[in-house]
Amino acid sequence: MTQTTVFEHPLNERTRLYLRVEQLHQALSDAHSGDQASSHRGFFRTLFELCEVLERTDLKSDLGKQLDHSLTLVKQWQSQAGVDQQQLRALVSTLEGQSQALQQMERPGQNIKQDKFLSQIRQRISLAGGACGFDLPRLQYWLHLPKETRLAQMQQWTATLAPVLDAIELQLQLIRECSPWQNKVAVQGQFLHNAPQPLALLRLRLDNHYGCYPIISGHRNRFSINMMHYEQGNADVRNIPFMMSLSMESP
Amino acid sequence: MTQTTVFEHPLNERTRLYLRVEQLHQALSDAHSGDQASSHRGFFRTLFELCEVLERTDLKSDLGKQLDHSLTLVKQWQSQAGVDQQQLRALVSTLEGQSQALQQMERPGQNIKQDKFLSQIRQRISLAGGACGFDLPRLQYWLHLPKETRLAQMQQWTATLAPVLDAIELQLQLIRECSPWQNKVAVQGQFLHNAPQPLALLRLRLDNHYGCYPIISGHRNRFSINMMHYEQGNADVRNIPFMMSLSMESP
Repeated sequence: MTQTTVFEHPLNERTRLYLRVEQLHQALSDAHSGDQASSHRGFFRTLFELCEVLERTDLKSDLGKQLDHSLTLVKQWQSQAGVDQQQLRALVSTLEGQSQALQQMERPGQNIKQDKFLSQIRQRISLAGGACGFDLPRLQYWLHLPKETRLAQMQQWTATLAPVLDAIELQLQLIRECSPWQNKVAVQGQFLHNAPQPLALLRLRLDNHYGCYPIISGHRNRFSINMMHYEQGNADVRNIPFMMSLSMESP
Repeated sequence: MTQTTVFEHPLNERTRLYLRVEQLHQALSDAHSGDQASSHRGFFRTLFELCEVLERTDLKSDLGKQLDHSLTLVKQWQSQAGVDQQQLRALVSTLEGQSQALQQMERPGQNIKQDKFLSQIRQRISLAGGACGFDLPRLQYWLHLPKETRLAQMQQWTATLAPVLDAIELQLQLIRECSPWQNKVAVQGQFLHNAPQPLALLRLRLDNHYGCYPIISGHRNRFSINMMHYEQGNADVRNIPFMMSLSMESP
């Protein structure tokens, strides 16, 4: 069996933002597990990037609406026959909990912005090589604290963002799980799609043995896929079968 | 026995640059060992930062002069009685090799700048969360290549910088090893020093149980140390003993 790679492409701004947050959230978790000075610097950098992305738009209220919409949807599913009622009840309870946590939280990143220690690091870390021990002796000291102390503090900083991060994670899970895979072919390496209903996310699964990757452009009503040959670095004009999954935009 | 922490502070521009390069070099090596997408992003980011730092000044010719100076010095040591001749011969041979490799190398970072794949990543990676799979499908493909392929390519990119990185590593080692430790006390948390000869690097070793870190300011002829209490976040006015090592600036 050959291996496959999934390529995701957001088709609206909301999903684009969610995917960026998801990637940074993942990087933050990875940095937690490292114990080198460089992985700590990676942690701080990612934390600040995450704050920047979360500050960007009116994310909190929009996410609240999405949670409400998901709740309505899941409650509709509960009235259908043959569904796993227990699983749906758990999902309703999780969504309600997330909605409440989101309402109670401050503006995302506010606590992190107000922390003096973090502010010092934030000012230096975007400069090339600018977070050396001699630039930030307080960070240097911090790096020598016992591992448990550092981990506890890292978790405390991350926890202030948890209501947004958890809600986005679940939203992406619902977006992905609710759309089936279909077999398609990119004829001469190209594929065009006009959507009758607005789309949120395109996913594409490609067999690795083709040695190609897709360049996707488009928006919620229309997109195009152009296959590129990785080794040759130019357009791949073969007929390439792939699997596609389209997630609808929620209102 | 209590644990100690060493704080280093460069007192001239050259050492400042060397320490930045050393930190980035270390981060690059750490990123080699990780196999998560986030550690690869860390690798690329560090590689680009390293190129930026190495491009900044007329580093190559200055480093060449430093290598020549070290060679002269080591050859002087060889004429002294009671020294380990074998070790010194090995050092001469290493320095000569580094000097040759440095002369033969292109402008540091040039190869990396010209690589199309790296250029694409470089454009996106400085944006917050800007190196997502959908921003860089070619990187997304690359991340799914076999580990050996990726490692080999990472080593190839890093290798183009090796002559500079190795030479700086040895220069810092010589700077550090050639200066002895002395016992000092920061009276009421303060310490001032006027240097008869220009200095390159100040190193300071502090017992962790004092719970303080130094704020150092100064240049090659004069510096001051002010102890700060980590927990209280203000100046520490106790008499604090520490160990100090001063490295002379080479001509």
